[in-house]
Amino acid sequence: METFLRQEDLEAIALGAPILGTGGGGDPYIGKLIARQAMSSGRPVRLIGLREVPDRALVIASAMMGAPTVFVEKVPSGEEAVTAFLALEEFLGERAFATYSIEAGGLNSTIPIGTAAKLGIPLIDADGMGRAFPEIQMVSPTLYDIPATPMALADEKGDVVILKHTITNRWTERLARSATIDMGGSAMIALYPMTGKQAKKALIAGSISFARRIGNRLTKAWRTRADPLDAILSETKGYLAFRGKVVDLERRTERGFAQGSVKLSGIDEDKGKELVVHFQNENLIAELDGSVLVSVPDLISMVDTETSVPVTTEGLRYGLRVAVVAIPCHSKWRSAKGLEVVGPGYFGYTAPYRPVERILR
Amino acid sequence: METFLRQEDLEAIALGAPILGTGGGGDPYIGKLIARQAMSSGRPVRLIGLREVPDRALVIASAMMGAPTVFVEKVPSGEEAVTAFLALEEFLGERAFATYSIEAGGLNSTIPIGTAAKLGIPLIDADGMGRAFPEIQMVSPTLYDIPATPMALADEKGDVVILKHTITNRWTERLARSATIDMGGSAMIALYPMTGKQAKKALIAGSISFARRIGNRLTKAWRTRADPLDAILSETKGYLAFRGKVVDLERRTERGFAQGSVKLSGIDEDKGKELVVHFQNENLIAELDGSVLVSVPDLISMVDTETSVPVTTEGLRYGLRVAVVAIPCHSKWRSAKGLEVVGPGYFGYTAPYRPVERILR
Repeated sequence: METFLRQEDLEAIALGAPILGTGGGGDPYIGKLIARQAMSSGRPVRLIGLREVPDRALVIASAMMGAPTVFVEKVPSGEEAVTAFLALEEFLGERAFATYSIEAGGLNSTIPIGTAAKLGIPLIDADGMGRAFPEIQMVSPTLYDIPATPMALADEKGDVVILKHTITNRWTERLARSATIDMGGSAMIALYPMTGKQAKKALIAGSISFARRIGNRLTKAWRTRADPLDAILSETKGYLAFRGKVVDLERRTERGFAQGSVKLSGIDEDKGKELVVHFQNENLIAELDGSVLVSVPDLISMVDTETSVPVTTEGLRYGLRVAVVAIPCHSKWRSAKGLEVVGPGYFGYTAPYRPVERILR
Repeated sequence: METFLRQEDLEAIALGAPILGTGGGGDPYIGKLIARQAMSSGRPVRLIGLREVPDRALVIASAMMGAPTVFVEKVPSGEEAVTAFLALEEFLGERAFATYSIEAGGLNSTIPIGTAAKLGIPLIDADGMGRAFPEIQMVSPTLYDIPATPMALADEKGDVVILKHTITNRWTERLARSATIDMGGSAMIALYPMTGKQAKKALIAGSISFARRIGNRLTKAWRTRADPLDAILSETKGYLAFRGKVVDLERRTERGFAQGSVKLSGIDEDKGKELVVHFQNENLIAELDGSVLVSVPDLISMVDTETSVPVTTEGLRYGLRVAVVAIPCHSKWRSAKGLEVVGPGYFGYTAPYRPVERILR
């Protein structure tokens, strides 16, 4: 597989990625702006498969870090992503063969496209989550003991920080989070440098084209007047978990995250029921009338009932009608180690994880 | 000037430096332990004058950062100081010709001796304050627009962070303080890399031998049964500001600093009066019966009335009798720019700075 990404691919990725973003990962509109800017100013970006990466080649993820509620106020220019990437290359004393997305959900699916365009390197069709998660250690490379460091952070003022070595990826998260908060709540980062051989083993293949397929299916449904929600469910093998109206919303930016919960009062078939979704940037757990319905690592996404456009945490508002979609996560997350890193227990919920396909049918 | 530091020099420096430490900078006993360990395990350390540093040579400060209240619980090994130093050298791609003390007050007078011994490089007889101050930007190089970055931080667990570039030294303080808090409240650092030419202009010459002279005078006074307080005042051109007993002590470790105030009830000639000293690691301002008596950048130090051993913030306790000594600061701090960086206004006090020698006679 080898394709150059076209403008319409970027639009499709920016549209589909927020479904994998599960509420977090930032507003798709901002992602589209960044991608569009990258396309017009940089070189064409080649999307390559994991198999095309030489075993000994260096690959580096390009991303942004911080609370999506901050991104809305402080729109990233994409320049700092390149600054962070170059700082890490310089620190490693080696040029990267390619870049990749550490999370295919939300803005971090489009950020590396901009970096690839500006640096003239390919983008790997893979990511480290198959979705979005709020913390740095919550990626498949952690399951293979691949360190997030050396890692570089850059902000729009010109500050550049390098985390040279840390004892664990969770520790990297802690140090990087503090720096991100100091940098004003968001920072551009370059991290998880690894070899092609490591990438083939540790990354989740096909995530970028998956986001693109979701976006394309959505657009096609709109164009053909088909049901866009059906298109999403069919493409993602997802389930319609609930339909409701936002009646309560608690959202705060705390410890560098957008945290809180949203209460939905059921409509249509769910009339009389209540769903509460708790989030930390991403939607973590959905409780139906007080009992856990779906939880991480499975995906919990919301779309506007009118348009089926994905709704992110910061886009939630009183009265909005949404459909809640639950999607099975990648199988890597269902291992014991995977659940330790991103299962409900890590986030402080006592309910054991039950795969979504055993609950919803 | 060129001398190898002997064991008795280290003891003298460790004893005299807390006078320049103005309550902060850590317990002199810990400083002595570190220096002693460095002497026995490393190579002999040559103390060189600023003039002996070639103009184009690289010099790097070695120090610890954090709340002195934490150092007492978490005694630094000195190994991490070398880790940070080597990480910065590696980052810069150049070996340092010498190391120096960024603050001659407290532990940071002895930390670079250990680093020099372990790396077999000389120690420069100079520092960046002529005393101790709580924040990274509060050094004479800031007055000459010399950046604190690139800067390295290391902790005892093995974490290493590099601040590559920041917009201001005050910004470096902010990012480094967060990392230090994450690292458990203290970290070993290497910072303010500069050329010999810059050092000659920006550093304060003779600070290490000044601390040694104070220590030697104290020891001599004890040996000859002379008045040790007179010895300190004469060596430092200081003033006896107050004698009192600790009647109230408010001390908390907050935002990575030991913060608070101590209230002294006057004894001897000061009977009936009350002195309150506010500190942020270091003593900042002394108020006599509610009016400012002495303030930063002049030095406010306390010594035990029995022994004249310097008393640090974390050594304060109810009932302790202390003499408060006020010492004129280096003239660099009395410039408009100097007062902007370390004057009472920076710390939130509205009283204008008045040189101590105009108040006390």
